[in-house]
Formats: sequence, C-alpha cells, structure tokens
Amino acid sequence: MVVLKAKIIDIITGEKSIVLNEEDAKNLMLKLNDRVRLNRCDVSTTGICESIVCFTEITKTLVNPGEIGIYRDILKDFPIKDGENIEVNPAPTPLSVEYIKKKMKGKTLTKSEINQIIKDVVSYSLSQIEIAAFLMAEEYVGMNMDEIENLTRAIAENGNIIDFEEPVVDKHSIGGVPGNKVSLLIVPIVASAGLKIPKTSSRAITSPSGTADTMEVLAPVNFSAGELKRILKKTGGFIVWGGSLNIAPADDIFIRIEHVLSIDPLSQMLASIMAKKLAMNIKTLVLDIPVGRGAKVENFDEARKIANQFIELGNRLDIRVRCGITYGGQPVGHTVGPALEAKEALETLMGNGPKSLIEKSTALAGMLFEMTGLTTKGGGQDMAKEILRSGKAYQKMKEIIEAQGGNPNIKPDEIPLGDKRYVVVAPTDGYISSISNSAINAIARAAGAPIDKGAGVKLYAKMGYAVKKGDPIIEIYAERSTKLKEAIDLISRNPPFMIEGMLLEEVPGF
Amino acid sequence: MVVLKAKIIDIITGEKSIVLNEEDAKNLMLKLNDRVRLNRCDVSTTGICESIVCFTEITKTLVNPGEIGIYRDILKDFPIKDGENIEVNPAPTPLSVEYIKKKMKGKTLTKSEINQIIKDVVSYSLSQIEIAAFLMAEEYVGMNMDEIENLTRAIAENGNIIDFEEPVVDKHSIGGVPGNKVSLLIVPIVASAGLKIPKTSSRAITSPSGTADTMEVLAPVNFSAGELKRILKKTGGFIVWGGSLNIAPADDIFIRIEHVLSIDPLSQMLASIMAKKLAMNIKTLVLDIPVGRGAKVENFDEARKIANQFIELGNRLDIRVRCGITYGGQPVGHTVGPALEAKEALETLMGNGPKSLIEKSTALAGMLFEMTGLTTKGGGQDMAKEILRSGKAYQKMKEIIEAQGGNPNIKPDEIPLGDKRYVVVAPTDGYISSISNSAINAIARAAGAPIDKGAGVKLYAKMGYAVKKGDPIIEIYAERSTKLKEAIDLISRNPPFMIEGMLLEEVPGF
Repeated sequence: MVVLKAKIIDIITGEKSIVLNEEDAKNLMLKLNDRVRLNRCDVSTTGICESIVCFTEITKTLVNPGEIGIYRDILKDFPIKDGENIEVNPAPTPLSVEYIKKKMKGKTLTKSEINQIIKDVVSYSLSQIEIAAFLMAEEYVGMNMDEIENLTRAIAENGNIIDFEEPVVDKHSIGGVPGNKVSLLIVPIVASAGLKIPKTSSRAITSPSGTADTMEVLAPVNFSAGELKRILKKTGGFIVWGGSLNIAPADDIFIRIEHVLSIDPLSQMLASIMAKKLAMNIKTLVLDIPVGRGAKVENFDEARKIANQFIELGNRLDIRVRCGITYGGQPVGHTVGPALEAKEALETLMGNGPKSLIEKSTALAGMLFEMTGLTTKGGGQDMAKEILRSGKAYQKMKEIIEAQGGNPNIKPDEIPLGDKRYVVVAPTDGYISSISNSAINAIARAAGAPIDKGAGVKLYAKMGYAVKKGDPIIEIYAERSTKLKEAIDLISRNPPFMIEGMLLEEVPGF
Repeated sequence: MVVLKAKIIDIITGEKSIVLNEEDAKNLMLKLNDRVRLNRCDVSTTGICESIVCFTEITKTLVNPGEIGIYRDILKDFPIKDGENIEVNPAPTPLSVEYIKKKMKGKTLTKSEINQIIKDVVSYSLSQIEIAAFLMAEEYVGMNMDEIENLTRAIAENGNIIDFEEPVVDKHSIGGVPGNKVSLLIVPIVASAGLKIPKTSSRAITSPSGTADTMEVLAPVNFSAGELKRILKKTGGFIVWGGSLNIAPADDIFIRIEHVLSIDPLSQMLASIMAKKLAMNIKTLVLDIPVGRGAKVENFDEARKIANQFIELGNRLDIRVRCGITYGGQPVGHTVGPALEAKEALETLMGNGPKSLIEKSTALAGMLFEMTGLTTKGGGQDMAKEILRSGKAYQKMKEIIEAQGGNPNIKPDEIPLGDKRYVVVAPTDGYISSISNSAINAIARAAGAPIDKGAGVKLYAKMGYAVKKGDPIIEIYAERSTKLKEAIDLISRNPPFMIEGMLLEEVPGF
C-alpha cells in the first residue's frame, strides 16, 4: 500500500483508469492495465471512507513519483479533490470474473453469483472486455428463467428504486422501428382516463430519435425522482429521460457494450426492460413487440416466444404483462427525427394524424384500459380512440408539457424543422414494394438526427402506395448543408425504398 | 476534416486513443470513443504519408481547441512530433467489424475476410471489445480447417518474415507446465548435430518464467532480424525473445486479450503457433503437447486430436510436424523461476541434471534427428543423449551464450538466486500424491518471478517420492522479504503438494 497525492487530469476516457509514475508502478508491482483499489477517507467532514477499483496507466513524466493521475470519469462516483491523499493498493481480480468464466463454460449461475456480477459492473470493477465476455456468454450459452429472474432483480436492486405510492401502469416497446412516437400519444390518452403512467424513456443510441429526444422538442425531460413524483400527482403522466435517475444503472453500461458488439442477448433484453419496471414499481405493463423485415424481431413465431417469456418473467416479479405484437416492417407514421416526430404526434393529438399511428397508439393504450378493468375485454381501443377524438388527450398533453416546463400552447407549425431540404422522387410508375428501416435510419442520422433536432426524414408514400414517376417519396431535412449532402450521398448506396418494376442498376454502367 | 496541432501526452494507456477538446469533437460530430483517422505527411524528408485509426477521448482544458492530444502508445507506429500538424477525420467502422459479426452468427469466413480482420487488428483499427468478440466467436462457434489455414497465413503475412536462406528446424511447446526449461537443452543438442534451430520464445504472461526470461539470466535475448541471421550462421542455434521482431504481431494482441478472457480457442492456438513458424520459414517442427492434471490439455484423447490438427495444418503450410505428447501433470525438473531454471539447465548440460528433464529434452531433440534423416526411426533419443553426455551440447551452449553477448564461462553456482528463503517441510510421513502446477505457479509469482529473476521455487520431492515428517519438500526463493511473505501466505490457502494420508484440515478447528 502507498499513499499518493491526487492530480486531476482533465480528460474523459470512457474507462475507469488512473495514471501512475512508472517508479510507483514498479514498486507496487503493477503492470499496464492492472487493477488498483483507491481508498479515500473524508476525515474533515463525514469521516466516511470510500473505495473504487480502477485500471492502471503508466507515465514517466506527466505524473511524478508520489502522485496519482485521476481522469474525470472517476470524479462522478469518487469525488477526489486535486492534491488530496489517496491510498493505493494493487487490487485482486474481482470474484465476479470467476462467475463470468463459469457462465462462459456453459454453467448455470446462482442468485448470489449474478448479484456479484451486477454489483461489480455498477461499481466499475470489471473491464469492458470482461463485461463483453459476460454478454457474449449470454448470447451463446443463454440463461434459464431462474437466472433471468435473478439478473432482473440484481439489475433493479443495484440502483435507485422509485416508489410512486400508488398503482402505476406503463407501456414499453422492445424497439427497432423508426418513427415510433406512439408514447407521445399513449401517455396522454392513458392519463386522461385516470390511470397513472410515469413514462421514462431513453435517448437514441443507434436510431435517429429516442422517445426522450422527441419529447425534448416540446419540453425539458431531465428531472429528479422527487420532481417526477410531484408531476405525476398533478398530471397522472409524464414523458421524461430515464438516464439521470440512476434506475438500473447496470443496463446503461450493458447497452453501450451491446451496441459495440451488435448483440442483444434475449436474456439481457428481458432483464433490462423488466428491471427498469421493477425499479419504478410498475404493476401493469403493455409491451409492444414490433415484427417485420428490418425490425428487431423478424417473424411471428419468434415474437410469440419472446412475448411468453416476458409474461412468465412478469409473473415471477409480480408485474402483470400483456404483449402487443405490432407491424414493424416500415417506419410508424410518416416522420423520423426528433422535431418531425414531435410535430406529427402533436398534429395527431389535435385530430389530424395518420391512421397507422392512431391505430397503433390506441390499440396499445386500450390494452391498459382492459387490464386495469376500466373497460371490458374488446372495448379498450374504442375507449382510447374516443379519448383521442374528444380532444381530452390533447388537453392532457398540454398539461404534461406545462408540468415539464415546456410551452403548452405550441402549434405544430411553430416547431422548428431543418431548412436544408431535399426531395427524392419516384424514378418510375409503380407500387412501393418496400421501405427499408435501416436505410431510413441511416439517412436520418446522416442528416444530423438526433443531435440536430430539426433533422430527419419525411415519408410521402409507404408500402403499397401507388406512385407516378416524379412523385415525391421521401424528403430529407437537415440543419446544416454538409449533413444534407452526407444524407443525399447515402441514398444511392443504400436505397430507402423499392418500386415494383424499378430498374435497380444498369450493368455495365456508362 | 480538420488540421490539429499534436500535443504529446506522456501516458501509456494500453489502447490507441487520442484526446480532443470538446469543441473540436462537437464540430467533427465525434462522441467519446468514436473512431478517428489521423493522417500525417512527412513533407520535409521522405514525402511519405501515413495514417492510423484511433479512439476519441474528450477534454475541456488539457488540450486546447486546435490541438490533438497524442498518447505514447501511438508513437511507436506513428511517430508524430510535438507541435506537428495532423489531419483528423471521423473514421467509419472498419469493414472487418462486419466480418466479426458474421463469425459471431456462426458463418464461415472467406480468406479475404479473415485477412481484413488481421490487417485491422495489426493496425489497431479494432477496439479491444471487438477483438474480444472475434476470439469469443472462435471459442463458441469454432473454425474449420480452411479458416484456420487462412487465419494462420493472414497472421504470418501481416508481420515481418525472416528468411534464414537455409533449412531450419524448431521445437515448440503449447505450454501450460511450470519449469519447462527444455529449450535450453534442446537447442544446443540439436545445433551440435549440425541442424539450424533459430528458437524464438516468449516472456512469461501468466507463468513464473518464459523461455526468454530464463535464457536472459545467461545472455541478452533482444536482437534484430539481421543480428539473428549472423548468430545462426555462426552457432547454428540461438534462444531469443521473439517479441521485438514484429513476427506475427497480431498474435501478441490476441494473447493479451485471451489472457483477460481466460480463453484459448483451439483455432487461435493452432494459427498463432503455426503463423510464427511460417514467418520464420521453419520447415521441420516438433511440437510438445504436455498432458496431465493442471496442464493445458488434461487427457490423451484431446491431446491426440490437437496433434492431428497441427499435423494437418502443417501439411497445408508445407511444414512437417511431429507431435510429442509428454507428461505435464507436475513441473518439469526441480525448479521454477528464471535464475533457478537457468541454473538447472546449465547443470544438466554439464552432466548433473534430473532424469525427467534429460528424458524429455532428448526425446524431443531426437524426434528432430529422425525427421531430418540424421538417424533412423528409433535412434533419435540415443543420439541426443550421446551428444548431451559427451559435453558437445554444453560446448555449443557456451558458443550460443557468447554469440548472444553473455558470459560463456559462467558456473551454475555463480548465477545469483534470491537470498530470502523459506523451506516447506512434510507435515507427516508418506508418499507425495500430487504436486499442483497452478499452486507452484502462484507461489513462484508471488515470490516475485519473473520480474525478480532470482525468485522462484525449488522442489526437493516430486510425485511418488517417499518422504518423512520434517523432510524439506519445496523451498521458496525471493529477492525481497515482502514478496517472500506473500508467497508463504499463499501456501496455506493453496497447498502446492499432497501427501497420501496427510490430514488436510480439522473440523471444527480449535
């Protein structure tokens, strides 16, 4: 053990690392990327001691012997001050590494082993490679329902729990379909009927807009747990970003690594979604499972299997779950991108929206009405449609926008959209035979979404529409001309739609 | 694209990362850990342009807008000077990421796909997580022999090739047994018979001593390819560290990550070993496969399967391979640790060594004599024993030590050993029923090996020896008392030997 003086290094690295002078590293017998445990005791004020495990980096000059370089990544969980004395010890490999290897070998993990893994994930004691190994083992080896239940409880319990002290319902989509702004309709419809629906949502990771990005066009989405309790009491519903609430924080770490690996193990998806519901004390949940080409789930049989697993897991966790298998083979509604989607949702609430968006939103909202006994089986969607038609849902959305600090009187046309635009027209007469989810996503992201809120894609035609040569099919919106150009460049490489009979390519070209 | 001024940051991080000011990152639309390509053109001298892909880290103050922070990790392959102008572009995800995902999904990879993966590994275009995903896919999905051949060729070709311009032979162990100093005997025996044996070896990663660490006790082991050619001409053999020759550099990167994951996919082991032989233009190879409890391979059937795969891969690569399946259930000889092993090897060359070490070394050397036609089938080991007995092998070793810059006249007793020592005695009469490879490794490492050359373990008794209560069984050597204490502490937690009839534990204790 040695005591070293902290020297803050103003870099965010993406890992929990510290920097030692090579002399100190040698004395501690630490090699590059070995683990160390840092201890600090706040003697002057609280007397509390904290500790954190980090990975070692080495310098000859940037940090002197007797000092320890601390990157900014560490300060959030371990608020060291510059010049503070820190105890530094070589740290053993955490126990959970053994459990990850056990899973890699195809064995079943116990409750306490799974809990230790999640504890070590959340405390950043595992390296990204070790977490990747755990996720790959889940993907290749799989988990049984006992393990999934234990994983779900561990993810929920190793994070904050929010108790709204009254029965709350929720709607969740497993994702994978562009333009899925249905939460902006479902939350006000459901809250209008007197149910409490505290909707936390995510920002886009690989898509052009997450529900939180879309709602943020209309109102702030970043609140503390206490503020959310007050808003829910007042309005019966909200649509906020879940990321700052420290609910199921392991999930955020897993999602980043799943994204790099392009995997989404079923056990992890079940546990991640249900852990967040457990932590929010949700008792009634409707789960949207979009199915179709280019969606996360490509066929009905698989969707049914997933649905049954969610229902079984829900039973074990005392959460009533019903799943809605919906069509996910093309974008929902006609818009993709934060501002475009917020505008379309608002228009729909005001009585002027596309049928597909209305049908999907009211079907899912209606399931919640039936599950909570507000109406009998089969009456839910009609009830939801009536709430939407009557304008009650729009009034409720204005209350929610106001409670979240936005302008409740905003008109759809006042929402700023990117003014750099480009229209792609039909190259021939015919019927639209496919719209590519992945190409639409890529074009909207290239145009600047979700960072540029006004960027995105508007669809003038969807599958099965009859079009004539020269008809507009999609319009690209961007805030910057460089981004518009990038999006246009993508179209030829990755066509976003097909027209039956369209010439795809001439070989050889000119 | 922007041009930024390089600012060297004196830290070794273990990853290829650069640091941008958050303003520049925002303008380039780069998020934490996104890929960037750096370009530099050496206009003043060679006019050559180079480029490298790195991962982005972010700072508010440590690097100003207009600057780019460069960690030391990058300088080896991309020797930027402080203040130099560097072109910086956001970089797309490398193509090989798609191929890794293809393998993860269980598909077979083509030659060009495998080559692209290795190219991107060597150029550090892949993150550690992506490389981990590739290795995990090899472990779980496996590779067929076509893929293994292509992987072997790709690893060899994406690195330096050394051609000694005459037929060269080699001996290699797949590893896993402590104290395996046989190369220090085999190389001089084989070279004494007129064969050319250019032995490159590795340093310890998880073991207490690699062959390179052991040889370094007697002579320097770090040479350029040109120096090795001259040494081989003169002596017919050498024992050096392969790490600085840039032979099969992908392998070094894979090994580091395999170590973190504790996996050793068979396809990767085959390709790694044979790629290095291909790059050294080895035409005749004896492969040592130790089998036994606590070795890498635990049973004969598995060892035979692995042997056949090496032989088939050798056929495809035009390398004649014979495998020797040897006993690996306890350490080879009586010593573990660099100086102790070098001493034991030297004593054996001088005519005073343990039988197990002599038998193993001469058996493997003899196989090379038979394969190259120096003797007929069955006569190899006798020929090797005669070379050893006659003192010719010792004379050859002196030549090799001298050619590598060491003292050829060193006596075994002049090799410095750790002077902090501790003897573990038999707690009871009986027969030694097991010696634990992993416990011996752990104790020797805790004692300071391989960093402290004089640290290690000496065995006074091995499996089957009859011992009396109080007889010395193992002696621990250390250079520092703190390390000796650590090693002693390990013994009770992880007993290195068992005596039949020994009381293991009293329950309940006092």
